[in-house]
Amino acid sequence: MLTYSFNNIGSDSLYNYLYKCIRDDILAGKLKSGEKLPSKRTFAKNLGISVITVENAYEQLSAEGYIYSIAKKGFYVADMKNLSGIKPVFGHTEDINTSTDPGKYIADFTSNKVNKDLFPFSVWSKLIREVLRDNQELILAAPSYKGTEELRSAISDYLRDFKGIKADPDHIIIGAGSENLYGQIVQLLGHDKIYGVEDPGYQKTSAVYEANGVRLARIPFDRAGINIEKLLSEGVNVAHISPSHQFPTGIVTPISKRYELLGWASKEEDRYIIEDDYDSEFRLTGHPIPSLFSIDTTGKVIYMNTFSKSLSPSLRVSFMVLPDKLMARYKENLSFYTCPVTSMIQLTLARFILEGYFEKHLNRMRNFYKRQRDTLIRLISESKMSELVSISEEDAGLHFLISFNELDCTDSEFKALLLKKGIKIYALSDFYYDKSNPTEHTFVLNYSSLTEDELTKAVAILDRITCKPK
Amino acid sequence: MLTYSFNNIGSDSLYNYLYKCIRDDILAGKLKSGEKLPSKRTFAKNLGISVITVENAYEQLSAEGYIYSIAKKGFYVADMKNLSGIKPVFGHTEDINTSTDPGKYIADFTSNKVNKDLFPFSVWSKLIREVLRDNQELILAAPSYKGTEELRSAISDYLRDFKGIKADPDHIIIGAGSENLYGQIVQLLGHDKIYGVEDPGYQKTSAVYEANGVRLARIPFDRAGINIEKLLSEGVNVAHISPSHQFPTGIVTPISKRYELLGWASKEEDRYIIEDDYDSEFRLTGHPIPSLFSIDTTGKVIYMNTFSKSLSPSLRVSFMVLPDKLMARYKENLSFYTCPVTSMIQLTLARFILEGYFEKHLNRMRNFYKRQRDTLIRLISESKMSELVSISEEDAGLHFLISFNELDCTDSEFKALLLKKGIKIYALSDFYYDKSNPTEHTFVLNYSSLTEDELTKAVAILDRITCKPK
Repeated sequence: MLTYSFNNIGSDSLYNYLYKCIRDDILAGKLKSGEKLPSKRTFAKNLGISVITVENAYEQLSAEGYIYSIAKKGFYVADMKNLSGIKPVFGHTEDINTSTDPGKYIADFTSNKVNKDLFPFSVWSKLIREVLRDNQELILAAPSYKGTEELRSAISDYLRDFKGIKADPDHIIIGAGSENLYGQIVQLLGHDKIYGVEDPGYQKTSAVYEANGVRLARIPFDRAGINIEKLLSEGVNVAHISPSHQFPTGIVTPISKRYELLGWASKEEDRYIIEDDYDSEFRLTGHPIPSLFSIDTTGKVIYMNTFSKSLSPSLRVSFMVLPDKLMARYKENLSFYTCPVTSMIQLTLARFILEGYFEKHLNRMRNFYKRQRDTLIRLISESKMSELVSISEEDAGLHFLISFNELDCTDSEFKALLLKKGIKIYALSDFYYDKSNPTEHTFVLNYSSLTEDELTKAVAILDRITCKPK
Repeated sequence: MLTYSFNNIGSDSLYNYLYKCIRDDILAGKLKSGEKLPSKRTFAKNLGISVITVENAYEQLSAEGYIYSIAKKGFYVADMKNLSGIKPVFGHTEDINTSTDPGKYIADFTSNKVNKDLFPFSVWSKLIREVLRDNQELILAAPSYKGTEELRSAISDYLRDFKGIKADPDHIIIGAGSENLYGQIVQLLGHDKIYGVEDPGYQKTSAVYEANGVRLARIPFDRAGINIEKLLSEGVNVAHISPSHQFPTGIVTPISKRYELLGWASKEEDRYIIEDDYDSEFRLTGHPIPSLFSIDTTGKVIYMNTFSKSLSPSLRVSFMVLPDKLMARYKENLSFYTCPVTSMIQLTLARFILEGYFEKHLNRMRNFYKRQRDTLIRLISESKMSELVSISEEDAGLHFLISFNELDCTDSEFKALLLKKGIKIYALSDFYYDKSNPTEHTFVLNYSSLTEDELTKAVAILDRITCKPK
């Protein structure tokens, strides 16, 4: 049976050492494609290590594609040749599977799900164990309405070091996802105010305001940023915007418009700006853009961000930074609330940031996303449809827009056609409330959750079914 | 003007350091009774710190009775002699330690904090590790608005086995604490409805409704349960009640009143009852009471519970069960939301319940609380004050009421006196909105977070400073 000596393990962890041994044997051809690996239990017993260690090593190998599992049978060595051979784009669609299982797609360009291999499970597991061991008092302490001091302070450091934002930890409020904070903001600024959102824009933001029973105004948004005349004519009190990277257009609001917005806000006592900076971590090229919050000297901007994009949407941790006056008001009116995020998650995340893991993780993710973007753009440029499309705003965030010059079907028909082939995609027009002003034939390619394999298949499908030019 | 140096601040927060400086000067007599403190703005400017920091320090001092505020005038040093001048009945207070550190009491009868030794840290640590190892896909999956299937299904089993409640997992919605669900309910039932809460009652419930901008009616509550005539005359649409164990009275709503309430709800289309069953796990004696939800045949009751009492308030996990019609409405209007509880916590809690740990934990907690209650009652009965007090409602939940037959000071004075001696306590009158109907000289002894040692010390202090009978 397969066996390894742990004599040269050095400072490596058992599981990681075992993972490397097996991986190297696969790469060297000592373990052949299709060969069955020993069962976890037997292997563990044989090596004198725990089953969990073997399990972790297998899981890592499996996640990276070196081995695969067959339910109730075991683990097998994958075919390395197949993995390295990215299939040609042209021809042979017949062999491409179509998806019929609802919720299971060949490629889902609408998903924000994080790729399993990218989430730092082992670090997270280590840190949460440490927190459960070291911070028992803190874990059970009555949670403050703002969130734990540890997390607020870690976020403050992060904002200072990586975004040049000065945020007093005492002005930071932790929320259970952005939606939760939108609701808190309505309670803070008032149910009687008019909230302005960008059109096109993120539909959930509007949905949350509507569910909170406030008046909502959709304000046109284009390359020049949000339309200030419309903010005025609609009587908006609170403008909810994403100046660093608007969704779905990817547009970065020009600096002149930023100052204009601050001017707008400063003219009335009850005007405020919510700067929703939800994925600015992932601008992949270009200089970082200073936040509205950091150029505001009048206390009119609420800065808001989330860990949904940078870690996982299932984590449900977001935060906002309030200016002095609003912080005092929050304290007076809303401090009876308990922060809705589990303390042990807050404390774990604080360690994750403070011990430098968050920075490393972001770098890793940025590299991954950059590769994804480059791959997708290369695949498109190598495809036949490359002559029919143009790509825009690919330098900001985790998606870009693809426009078909000519398409002899509607956006809805095109989406439906793609869905039948296993591809889920949004049209830019889906994000417009004002349907009189739709942008036909432009689609949003959010590539963040897809593997290279999925991207390859998706582009091949797109290439074939692109409707005939008129 | 008053000034302090922050050179020796050490690891203390700015506000806490400032708080201590001022407090010490008051205690040392350097700041005299009636002396006006500098305005927050001037003081902040002078010390080179933010206004919020000064505000926080003043607020802490004010909450603890060192200073008081006069609207539009400012803050003044309180009369310390007056506070200490409430004479002990049986002498000898001098040797009892007084607590000065904020947040640190000899006994805090207002805290819901869970005793560190009671939280199942090792099991929890094991389970969360298992989840992080086995459920990586699930952890990162796009969270449903209802919460994970695993947790909803575990809760459904628990409700069936231990409370006789039939709840379809698909009708269960997981929330980040009760407060979060109250807000969701407003979004579900409407901002235009009138919400009725119990008076006396849990202040936070009212606060959440008010923050959500809805009309609130306080409905008198007594041994007979909530007053239905008043529900009618106030035009209440939604009655928020705790029939199994009302806080703070501990009263269990009689069965006849329960049916009357269901009758009330069934008479109008938009009438609903929210059954907030927040600590029914801990009725320590007597038969379990069937929930309103389980005797309702008309789909008018939303059942709601939380793990704050049974596990820890810092966990932030609650749930509600919706009747058919409301479930459909929730799905239609609010399913765009993402469940606000971190998936890994949901999955860990699901395992905790399914693998039988929750049941064991509840049994352990019940035994612990029963011992606490018995100890506290024994200590009181053995004390000199036993002749002056009566105890009521000790058979339900984690607190009981103690009434002093005669007390020659107000409830506020008594609480302030106790606070100076390191005991934090609420009066029953604190929970009444209608102050014309206060219950003087009755206090709420919530013993759930205290050790036997703390209970012993607390009763000794209570015994000594109980005011002279008239």
